[in-house]
Amino acid sequence: MKRNTRVSTAVIRRLPRYYRQLSELQRKGVIRISSSALGKSMGLTASQIRQDLFCFGGFGQQGYGYKVDSLKEQIGEILGINRGHTIVVLGAGNLGRALIENFKFSNNGFQLLAAFDVQERTVGTQIAGVPVYHADTLEEFLKENPVSVGLLTVPKSAAQTMGERLVAAGVHGIWNFTNCEIAFPGEDVVVESVHFSDSLLALNYMISQREDGQEQEDGKDKT
Amino acid sequence: MKRNTRVSTAVIRRLPRYYRQLSELQRKGVIRISSSALGKSMGLTASQIRQDLFCFGGFGQQGYGYKVDSLKEQIGEILGINRGHTIVVLGAGNLGRALIENFKFSNNGFQLLAAFDVQERTVGTQIAGVPVYHADTLEEFLKENPVSVGLLTVPKSAAQTMGERLVAAGVHGIWNFTNCEIAFPGEDVVVESVHFSDSLLALNYMISQREDGQEQEDGKDKT
Repeated sequence: MKRNTRVSTAVIRRLPRYYRQLSELQRKGVIRISSSALGKSMGLTASQIRQDLFCFGGFGQQGYGYKVDSLKEQIGEILGINRGHTIVVLGAGNLGRALIENFKFSNNGFQLLAAFDVQERTVGTQIAGVPVYHADTLEEFLKENPVSVGLLTVPKSAAQTMGERLVAAGVHGIWNFTNCEIAFPGEDVVVESVHFSDSLLALNYMISQREDGQEQEDGKDKT
Repeated sequence: MKRNTRVSTAVIRRLPRYYRQLSELQRKGVIRISSSALGKSMGLTASQIRQDLFCFGGFGQQGYGYKVDSLKEQIGEILGINRGHTIVVLGAGNLGRALIENFKFSNNGFQLLAAFDVQERTVGTQIAGVPVYHADTLEEFLKENPVSVGLLTVPKSAAQTMGERLVAAGVHGIWNFTNCEIAFPGEDVVVESVHFSDSLLALNYMISQREDGQEQEDGKDKT
């Protein structure tokens, strides 16, 4: 596949949304979709959609729109869905457990191999069929099992240390849910953080703006 | 405060990151920071920082940089930190429980009032001091308590319905963790979704790119 290798972060961030939207359309039995209809369903313009997808070598046929299943498949390939990536969860507390039980790792191209924790009551058990091992055995496990990504749901205080242990053992991707910044200067590792607070603060901003608009409206009514 | 009311989504999305970074700097005892140092710590250029903050009416003094505490306070005000917003959690399963126990709602300007669930073993208990009520009593509660945001951690199948109940009862903000799209056409409500899969797919893309780069490097070594 012809690809433009210089792809902006914004486009990369939109690709998963395309993938999600196309999966939804596929589920609904939609066969073909125009760029304007796809755009509308995602809050983007048709020209933005065409530009985004052009970055990855085209697709789509002038006047015919996109075939939902093949576009989904192509975007999935770009995203690395079929590369056989593997993941382990570090920290099997409430959040780790919620992700293990409910998150569809396989839909996102990952096989979930194991979880690690230090709690006696958890170690040695299984969560939704996933074995929980003691964190002390992490390096041993990583030596025998190629792991692409470590998912961090450990307490903040352990975040950096556990991340460093993953990196030292040759893991090149970290999915960070600890709500704190972790960094590995000079290391060849990709860190993707899910910052709940960034999301809630953005929502706070938006509802505050709405309230201000409301006040202005109310003010108008009075004059 | 003078504000440019047309602020792009990208800037809004960066504001929480500024707030988080400034909180971290404050914690470390940093008093003053230049736009270039602030930018470096966030992977942004100094000029981008100056542009972003200019959208909100300036701050900063030429040649002196920004005072950490007052910039943090001003951004906090823009974000709506001190507006006394309130939040309730719908769904006290693993994810809901993890958020109630570990997420600092108050640091993000929200008072967490209550949680709602349908499980007999959970209803009537408290989680980290937060009462869990039966979901049937939601409307009654909302009538007596002004609630700004409903946090959805219910199963996918209940997401849209619970959202509609919140909206019908006058809640104008929804923080959606159900990993499915919910929509309320024609309603005056802001929905902010945390899509775990978008984040993991982006990570998948980045590690796949890294692998391809690696292969190219390996190829070079061989020639």
